Amino acid sequence: MGKGRLEAFSDGVMAIIITIMVLELRVPHGSNVEAIRPLLPSFLCYALSFIYVGIYWNNHHHLLQTAERISGGVLWANLNLLFWLSLFPFATGWMGENHFESLPSAMYGFVLLMAAIAYYVLQRCIIAADGPRSVLERALGADWKGKLSPFFYVVAIATSFVVHWVAQALYVIVALLWLVPDRRIERAVGSD
Amino acid sequence: MGKGRLEAFSDGVMAIIITIMVLELRVPHGSNVEAIRPLLPSFLCYALSFIYVGIYWNNHHHLLQTAERISGGVLWANLNLLFWLSLFPFATGWMGENHFESLPSAMYGFVLLMAAIAYYVLQRCIIAADGPRSVLERALGADWKGKLSPFFYVVAIATSFVVHWVAQALYVIVALLWLVPDRRIERAVGSD
Amino acid sequence: MGKGRLEAFSDGVMAIIITIMVLELRVPHGSNVEAIRPLLPSFLCYALSFIYVGIYWNNHHHLLQTAERISGGVLWANLNLLFWLSLFPFATGWMGENHFESLPSAMYGFVLLMAAIAYYVLQRCIIAADGPRSVLERALGADWKGKLSPFFYVVAIATSFVVHWVAQALYVIVALLWLVPDRRIERAVGSD
Amino acid sequence: MGKGRLEAFSDGVMAIIITIMVLELRVPHGSNVEAIRPLLPSFLCYALSFIYVGIYWNNHHHLLQTAERISGGVLWANLNLLFWLSLFPFATGWMGENHFESLPSAMYGFVLLMAAIAYYVLQRCIIAADGPRSVLERALGADWKGKLSPFFYVVAIATSFVVHWVAQALYVIVALLWLVPDRRIERAVGSD
Repeated sequence: MGKGRLEAFSDGVMAIIITIMVLELRVPHGSNVEAIRPLLPSFLCYALSFIYVGIYWNNHHHLLQTAERISGGVLWANLNLLFWLSLFPFATGWMGENHFESLPSAMYGFVLLMAAIAYYVLQRCIIAADGPRSVLERALGADWKGKLSPFFYVVAIATSFVVHWVAQALYVIVALLWLVPDRRIERAVGSD
Repeated sequence: MGKGRLEAFSDGVMAIIITIMVLELRVPHGSNVEAIRPLLPSFLCYALSFIYVGIYWNNHHHLLQTAERISGGVLWANLNLLFWLSLFPFATGWMGENHFESLPSAMYGFVLLMAAIAYYVLQRCIIAADGPRSVLERALGADWKGKLSPFFYVVAIATSFVVHWVAQALYVIVALLWLVPDRRIERAVGSD
Repeated sequence: MGKGRLEAFSDGVMAIIITIMVLELRVPHGSNVEAIRPLLPSFLCYALSFIYVGIYWNNHHHLLQTAERISGGVLWANLNLLFWLSLFPFATGWMGENHFESLPSAMYGFVLLMAAIAYYVLQRCIIAADGPRSVLERALGADWKGKLSPFFYVVAIATSFVVHWVAQALYVIVALLWLVPDRRIERAVGSD
Repeated sequence: MGKGRLEAFSDGVMAIIITIMVLELRVPHGSNVEAIRPLLPSFLCYALSFIYVGIYWNNHHHLLQTAERISGGVLWANLNLLFWLSLFPFATGWMGENHFESLPSAMYGFVLLMAAIAYYVLQRCIIAADGPRSVLERALGADWKGKLSPFFYVVAIATSFVVHWVAQALYVIVALLWLVPDRRIERAVGSD
């Protein structure tokens, strides 16, 4: 089955998610500094979520390069990932509009956590479909980033209810961790 | 005529439909549990519709793999399917906002029914374009899922006005039926 | 230059236009028949515009198949067409919300007219880029549909201010005229 | 790594940006001339931004044609460009709704400036990835348009606070400058 069409559909969904998030930045009615100052938290949330969706697109890109077979399980694991990514605009908008309060901040972490788990499941499905000589399995190695991120998200969710800016700091730190592209896979696939 | 471009356009439309549905989950103004509790029905409807569009994308994917010729009739049958799918966000939003009341629930079933009929017509158009040795025709076999679903939708529409949760249960059951990918076609096309 | 990328971008824009039009069908707050009855004109406008964008996508598809060279002029003529198509959601929403009144109805015709002119200009640019042996030129022949439609739109715009339902009837008639796919081009390109 | 998927994702994002900008043209409730007259500035802003995104798409298209290697740096430089382009709908909507007042006009120039810088960085990353014999480096030559535009934007931002229509005139002038496609690259790549 066509890997190309799975990539095209995922690219389409991620392109739309990354773009409609900006619709939560509502155009203010006034034209002075006071009119846009309340939008600053929303803008920061938007920028953070843009980076996260960018990271997912980037890694998804690498991930599917290694996939040799697309089974029905891979298709649904991929849709599951897209489902959680599709909640980013909502979680981003809610955290931004409420200036990083506890519950919206925890909810943002929850959506990040579910997306991370969905990504992990997708990896496992691709490895299972590819069989014992999976390129991806060798490429992943210890996958410490993939294992550390959910742990950070859980800590951030819990922290949201105590000191919420620590939670936000954790979200930024995890994003920075991932900004470095996944060289393991690049190396395993070899020269482009 | 290019099957690729038909797939790309359909993928684009389905990717947008699956993503803009989330815009019906309006970001609430408050930041506590009370603020998001009313969104729960909308969220459940969103998740159900996401699965339905996922199923359609998945099966559409298999369907076009078997198509050998894209006639004008196939193009319009495909646009007809996309038209009914494009009403999913409206039907989903209406059912979610009204907590599964009778008329919105029946309307949701009606849109599902029309999409199922449009899918059936598309199958017939592809078989007609491919001629007597159509791969699709052999692959479909008895097509009991395709024949059972509209029947379930009609029952659900009628039931909506009596006990609406039975209708919702039927929508979930049909989705579960289809979650299993269409192995008949996979088998007929052979190894990927 | 890549014809593929021009097609992909145009497909993307048309897929988004055809889908966001449905956002003008605002989810009503009530759940009874009275709540959705006012949406009927909007729904009819949506269906008509869906058919129009479908026709443009379909014909655009055929048009680019014949194009052999994509010059800078073709790129901009294509963007000009997409610009006018992108105003369909606005024109559709305005006509639908105002129950087919005079000015919105004339505006709808104006957008249709500008899109038709933009399509004609795109045809001319492709023929100019392809040179004297253009496949498209031979394929178009007399192009009576392309010449008749703008005339109908002008009549409809004028009629909008007198008896607006005649204008709407003309929009439907032109759509029906075009629903038949452009067999001239299919024939000239030969077997698919 | 696949240049194709980078192009597809960028095309998707740019197609969505160019299309959702039209959502800022809110459908008015009235149906007479008075109802749409206030939308004229928004419409003009939309048309200008449509041309700008069209220019970026067009030039991006040429730019990636010359790229021979897609490094991690190119991926992120591209996402950075898409981020600034994604703010066009907001900046366009704000300037349009406030009839070209000072701050919204300066903000529009700021987004244009950041996008221009992001485009320049993307060019540099592609040249760095391609190495000393980069086709793009030779093709760019003096790149006077790329160097002049940011200067114009800075002047326009400053002018916004004095005579704002001069700023708007500058935005239009830069757009006109770029409307001419980048023949340098076309020439360097040779016949298509």
